Amino acid sequence: MWRSVITGTGSYIPTEVKTNQEFTANDFFTENNAPIGTAPEVIVEKFQKITGIAERRYVAEHLTTSDIATLAAEEALKDSGIDPETLDLIIVAHNFGNVVAGTVQSDAVPSLASRVKHNLRIRNAGCVAYDILFGCPGWVQGVIQVDAFFKAGIAKKALVIGAETLSRVIDRHDRDSMIFSDGAGASVLEYREVPETGSGILGSSALSHSLDEAYYINMATSYAPECTPGVRYIKMKGRKVYEYAIKLVPEAMKNCLDKCGVSIGDVKKVFLHQANEKMDEGIIQALYKLYGIRELPEAIMPMSIHYLGNSSVATVPTLYDLVRKGKDDEHELQPGDLVLFASVGAGMNINAICYRV
Amino acid sequence: MWRSVITGTGSYIPTEVKTNQEFTANDFFTENNAPIGTAPEVIVEKFQKITGIAERRYVAEHLTTSDIATLAAEEALKDSGIDPETLDLIIVAHNFGNVVAGTVQSDAVPSLASRVKHNLRIRNAGCVAYDILFGCPGWVQGVIQVDAFFKAGIAKKALVIGAETLSRVIDRHDRDSMIFSDGAGASVLEYREVPETGSGILGSSALSHSLDEAYYINMATSYAPECTPGVRYIKMKGRKVYEYAIKLVPEAMKNCLDKCGVSIGDVKKVFLHQANEKMDEGIIQALYKLYGIRELPEAIMPMSIHYLGNSSVATVPTLYDLVRKGKDDEHELQPGDLVLFASVGAGMNINAICYRV
Repeated sequence: MWRSVITGTGSYIPTEVKTNQEFTANDFFTENNAPIGTAPEVIVEKFQKITGIAERRYVAEHLTTSDIATLAAEEALKDSGIDPETLDLIIVAHNFGNVVAGTVQSDAVPSLASRVKHNLRIRNAGCVAYDILFGCPGWVQGVIQVDAFFKAGIAKKALVIGAETLSRVIDRHDRDSMIFSDGAGASVLEYREVPETGSGILGSSALSHSLDEAYYINMATSYAPECTPGVRYIKMKGRKVYEYAIKLVPEAMKNCLDKCGVSIGDVKKVFLHQANEKMDEGIIQALYKLYGIRELPEAIMPMSIHYLGNSSVATVPTLYDLVRKGKDDEHELQPGDLVLFASVGAGMNINAICYRV
Repeated sequence: MWRSVITGTGSYIPTEVKTNQEFTANDFFTENNAPIGTAPEVIVEKFQKITGIAERRYVAEHLTTSDIATLAAEEALKDSGIDPETLDLIIVAHNFGNVVAGTVQSDAVPSLASRVKHNLRIRNAGCVAYDILFGCPGWVQGVIQVDAFFKAGIAKKALVIGAETLSRVIDRHDRDSMIFSDGAGASVLEYREVPETGSGILGSSALSHSLDEAYYINMATSYAPECTPGVRYIKMKGRKVYEYAIKLVPEAMKNCLDKCGVSIGDVKKVFLHQANEKMDEGIIQALYKLYGIRELPEAIMPMSIHYLGNSSVATVPTLYDLVRKGKDDEHELQPGDLVLFASVGAGMNINAICYRV
């Protein structure tokens, strides 16, 4: 049988480390523009307890999203061993395009996929390059799209990248600015004939909730009382997002496993969008609870949020790359392992992929 | 056999008419920031001769791209007669997101597809909503993606919208600002069992040239000597785009027809991206020349650029909607007619779809 197989991975870990301590210099305000009447040190301590984030990484000033997307892509291509000229598809998932340091405009003309293809010096015009916007679950959705294109017979090799520089769109007067970070992760996928027990995508699920949920994550003006009118930043209704995710992500994950006929006991690792440690722990516990399991298996969920923060579309492909290449001290993968990729974010969108390594 | 059939169309024609005459008040500069030493009236006259554009339309100040995308979508849904809750997919093609009047930021968080789904009050979470960025050919590419998803068995009903408000990203000191306009076009597609001679997509082609061509259309600062640093506008290397399109679009169109086993004599209409009248005429002539035909068939290519300008992703679905509904004085469609959709734009990207009405 034919399956979509990840044959190479890569990631770009930005070089500039920003610790929580550095945020104690910021003036934080509420969404009603009132000063937060708590000492900065206390704010930061509380933040770390909830999110698990001790530090995050930002790209150097001269880099843009398409630059780091290219760096992750180069690594994934090298890892796969394929000739880049044989790619049929390049998909870049992002939400803000390139934002040049010191400016506020998002730039996606040409698309970041075109820029990456340009940077990779790929000549083959048959390699179609486009961007997808699907909130944080964009990379996972790109992989789901590739699987569909493979099945429809219109592509056999694809590169899917998730890249974002959230450091350029955060409001420094909003405590949530501490959550977000920069990063890029990439994967090469190939359509391969494999035995029934072979590697590849077994199935996927995707959901969009946009009735009450559309503006849980959006763009709005700064929380600072005196702010530039017309300049907007990423904003999140944290409590709403949390409740939404805890309730609906586990169901979507279970639905994906059910579709694939995979029992929860066979899942070796869950690569969940690194949104917030407490939320991710809540999601994984709720998933197992759906099966009546109250004790989580050991080492089921790799986490990178402690030192990488939430880099949107980049978290899942980056985390998978790190674990796959033995760069995570607590987690490793073996051929044949069943894993689950899952994400949640702006839209609101949720998705999951069941994959055999 | 099963085919992807367009079962409903809609478009939004913006209400504010902007004539060429109104541009004579602008100070135009070259890309080297030198004043153009020609009377404004002469500049405008020459412009009209080349592009065929006499006037264009802009959206009212209170509207954004996702608003007009919704209006076009509502019309297409009504036209198709389907229950919006049965949609499996909503794809919005654009390149700049929402740009609120008087600001310079592109906003695509949440995605425009999520906003449209929100506006349509669709509750079904199984209706996945995402945006695609592929330059001007984004709507055509969205339709190609839908065809693939239908064939892969992951969707049966889809809504594809192309919407853009270029009036919010143009540099008034650049003559090319006269080319661009606002608009939205939408189509409902359904996967249907039809006879061999029945309606639907027969085949498609897509190409991305990003080696030398990636920055033929991009974002850059104003041509005015004194301009706001960091604010960028849509820019086009007109001559390069023209030469590229004339050379490569006809080949892609022929390649699409060849793949479908359709002879040029059977093509009744060509719905080409409304980029520039001279360029579009050059492309259609070159297409027929590839078949050794020097005289074009009558009424082969509907044009709306004279009064609607170039509204990027919106031109093809809008034009198809107008002709399909008998709103074009010179063109009409009959069931069974073979038509070609084709587009070209930033990336640089080219695509074509052969479709039987």
